[in-house]
Amino acid sequence: MINDPLRVLVDTVQKLQRRGFHRNVRKILQGTRPTDIAGLLRFVPDRDRQKIFKEIEDIETRATVLSEMDPEILESFLGGLLDEDLVLLLEEMSSDDTVDILEQVPEDRKHKLLRMMKREDMTEAEDLLQYDPETAGGIMVPDFFALTEETTCDQAVNQLRKASDQLEMAFYIYVINEHSHLVGVVSLRDLVISRSDRPVSEIMETDVIRVQTRDDQEVVAKLVARYNLLALPVVDETNKLVGIVTVDDVIDVLRSEATEDMFKMAGAGGSPITYDGTTIFKAAKSRLPWLFASWLGGVGVSFIIRGFQDRLIEAVVLASFMPIILGMGGNVGTQTLTIVTRGLALGQINFAQILKVLRREMLIGFASGVVYGTLLGFLASLMSVGVTDKSPVMIGVTVGVSLALAMMIATAMGSTVPLVLHRLHIDPAVATGPFVSTSVDALGTVVYFSIATVLLGL
Amino acid sequence: MINDPLRVLVDTVQKLQRRGFHRNVRKILQGTRPTDIAGLLRFVPDRDRQKIFKEIEDIETRATVLSEMDPEILESFLGGLLDEDLVLLLEEMSSDDTVDILEQVPEDRKHKLLRMMKREDMTEAEDLLQYDPETAGGIMVPDFFALTEETTCDQAVNQLRKASDQLEMAFYIYVINEHSHLVGVVSLRDLVISRSDRPVSEIMETDVIRVQTRDDQEVVAKLVARYNLLALPVVDETNKLVGIVTVDDVIDVLRSEATEDMFKMAGAGGSPITYDGTTIFKAAKSRLPWLFASWLGGVGVSFIIRGFQDRLIEAVVLASFMPIILGMGGNVGTQTLTIVTRGLALGQINFAQILKVLRREMLIGFASGVVYGTLLGFLASLMSVGVTDKSPVMIGVTVGVSLALAMMIATAMGSTVPLVLHRLHIDPAVATGPFVSTSVDALGTVVYFSIATVLLGL
Repeated sequence: MINDPLRVLVDTVQKLQRRGFHRNVRKILQGTRPTDIAGLLRFVPDRDRQKIFKEIEDIETRATVLSEMDPEILESFLGGLLDEDLVLLLEEMSSDDTVDILEQVPEDRKHKLLRMMKREDMTEAEDLLQYDPETAGGIMVPDFFALTEETTCDQAVNQLRKASDQLEMAFYIYVINEHSHLVGVVSLRDLVISRSDRPVSEIMETDVIRVQTRDDQEVVAKLVARYNLLALPVVDETNKLVGIVTVDDVIDVLRSEATEDMFKMAGAGGSPITYDGTTIFKAAKSRLPWLFASWLGGVGVSFIIRGFQDRLIEAVVLASFMPIILGMGGNVGTQTLTIVTRGLALGQINFAQILKVLRREMLIGFASGVVYGTLLGFLASLMSVGVTDKSPVMIGVTVGVSLALAMMIATAMGSTVPLVLHRLHIDPAVATGPFVSTSVDALGTVVYFSIATVLLGL
Repeated sequence: MINDPLRVLVDTVQKLQRRGFHRNVRKILQGTRPTDIAGLLRFVPDRDRQKIFKEIEDIETRATVLSEMDPEILESFLGGLLDEDLVLLLEEMSSDDTVDILEQVPEDRKHKLLRMMKREDMTEAEDLLQYDPETAGGIMVPDFFALTEETTCDQAVNQLRKASDQLEMAFYIYVINEHSHLVGVVSLRDLVISRSDRPVSEIMETDVIRVQTRDDQEVVAKLVARYNLLALPVVDETNKLVGIVTVDDVIDVLRSEATEDMFKMAGAGGSPITYDGTTIFKAAKSRLPWLFASWLGGVGVSFIIRGFQDRLIEAVVLASFMPIILGMGGNVGTQTLTIVTRGLALGQINFAQILKVLRREMLIGFASGVVYGTLLGFLASLMSVGVTDKSPVMIGVTVGVSLALAMMIATAMGSTVPLVLHRLHIDPAVATGPFVSTSVDALGTVVYFSIATVLLGL
């Protein structure tokens, strides 16, 4: 939700800006946290964004605002900035943020900007640009604080005092050997409270949890979450320390991975949440494959029903219960699918437990199926009295049993399909939705009309 | 997924334990991180859990393992521990973990355990137990490091050295006045790098982001995520500093809130992911309301279809396209619903943008509807040649237009319903699923048969 203080800020700044009260705008922005200025810019119209941004006096604040700006308004915003101004801002940021921005501009502008940057900043940015943005290398910062093994605690604290403005966060201090290989870690707290003449190698922890540059950001996030870390060191293939990932970036990863999983499960993978800078066409495209798969499945189901058309003519009352049978199957299947897929994503269930999961989910499908099937069966009997020449009791039994079976089939598929996909190293979030719902529709239809054929003598 | 190193650990320890090689088990556990021991215990059968736990020699490790144990195996595990042993472990933990454990045991045992604890630990635990576990008070630790305004940086570092083992994390140091009110914050880094005789009031930041004990844990998580914090101070109604929430706990909150939202949207809210210690009945119960709502909706749709039964008898071919029309509507509606609900949860869209959201989603519904409707219309015409006395072209038009309209209705509902609920302060994740899918089914059916009545002259 756009919370009330932010809304007040948006309204006030917009009003003042439009009336030309620039001094007041500047004053307000001075007293506002960069994150909140970024939030403000998100909610003002395109045309006001650049103007308000220019009223931020402090360049460091301006750089932070730019690095915290919402990715979806960023692209068009960057288009409105002059190269000269942008370079100054890029040099002010930490290099991981610089790279995030550079990845949003067209290829030729990126190279132009890089050439305009100071040599040191350029090299750092170019190093980082080689990593896939969704890997450890892509989210790390190369500014970390590392000591050699023989440094004493006292020397370490002194070095830290001198180096302090380059550091993003110096909560763990890494220890490297003469080849720059990561050999240990010391917390700042341990440094401060230890006897000052001890070498850090004596107080360091040697079993350091680390990731490689190519590791997926999800791996990074899982390690940080599991071991309650504030930062995680990143090494290259030779174990040379090349950067760190900090917990604040991991939080962003966790949130966006959760969003991604939700969207994938709803078949809206890659779809943006907000609307600026995204064409309808792009958004529709990302949702197309899932819809197309459902469409194909739906056509298949139409053919199946058409195969039973003669029987449907004899007992057209059956048609009215098709949506509820397929719908309830789909619903309970989605529940199972969601629980199993999320459990897999969080590492809480695995292939070895497939039988246990299957048994539980099918029991739930069975129990729910019996309850709702019985209820619907009674209702279907009552609804059929006088509207058909078939036996209302048999119609009730047909409808009830079909509902129960559809729910059992749905839970069985909803639990096995993601487990099998996971075993085959396919992301269950992306593929199961249309597959399960279509299969449930198809199998449910076949079950329904087959039972009807037998019980109603069609 | 249960990753391979963990699986090797599980297999090895279980084998050694069953063969009675206790010394080897102890040695392995000694070299294993507490988090990984907790992971190991998750994947061994109930009967081995207590035995392996007893092989952990170090009581501090044992306490950490217990506090990191999965909530779903915790309850039964605690049942197998003697009160005397459990009290020793509880006293070893930080008080927020103590409270988490105490909340898992029956009321009378909780009071017994509290009486057995050391006076100081007991008071701290009792203080924390009064807060709702899902509020800032419920997830905070009361052990924080606070200084008074006139303390110099040098004195501060000395105090920190002395106090260091009580502290969970001392990355921010809070400054309080003579009434214990929170007045500022200093980072440990700033302390270390500042001139040693300056009072902390000169280097502190006075605009401290804080929460109140009663604030929901989601508010806490959002603030920490938004401002990239490592810890957040918690104050009572009088602004007295009473605790801090650390970023590692916030990560747990973010993950469980994301899971909760996913489950709510699938109508499986409150459902556990794993299966130990939860009866099938409990799991089925948590999924029942959603299924019941869908069932009721489905019955409503049955009545609607029954109302059109005479027309269906005249053109039974219409029945075969019902599932695809309702299914595609449901699918695109779910996509919209997921995008809008997640956008609201992340604070990226709000009620003021309702028109923009509505317009975009309806355009997507319209575009997809036209494409899939046209495709299906052609197919339906072809499928109808020779199987009905109605005009195949008109059947095609009926089916195609109905599909397009169903998709537009679905996107309109999928975007407005969560926005309206959010405006009414009802969690959109919980209520929209069955409501939207049922409405789409009902409206889709009415649209379909109404168009058919007109175009086919039924």
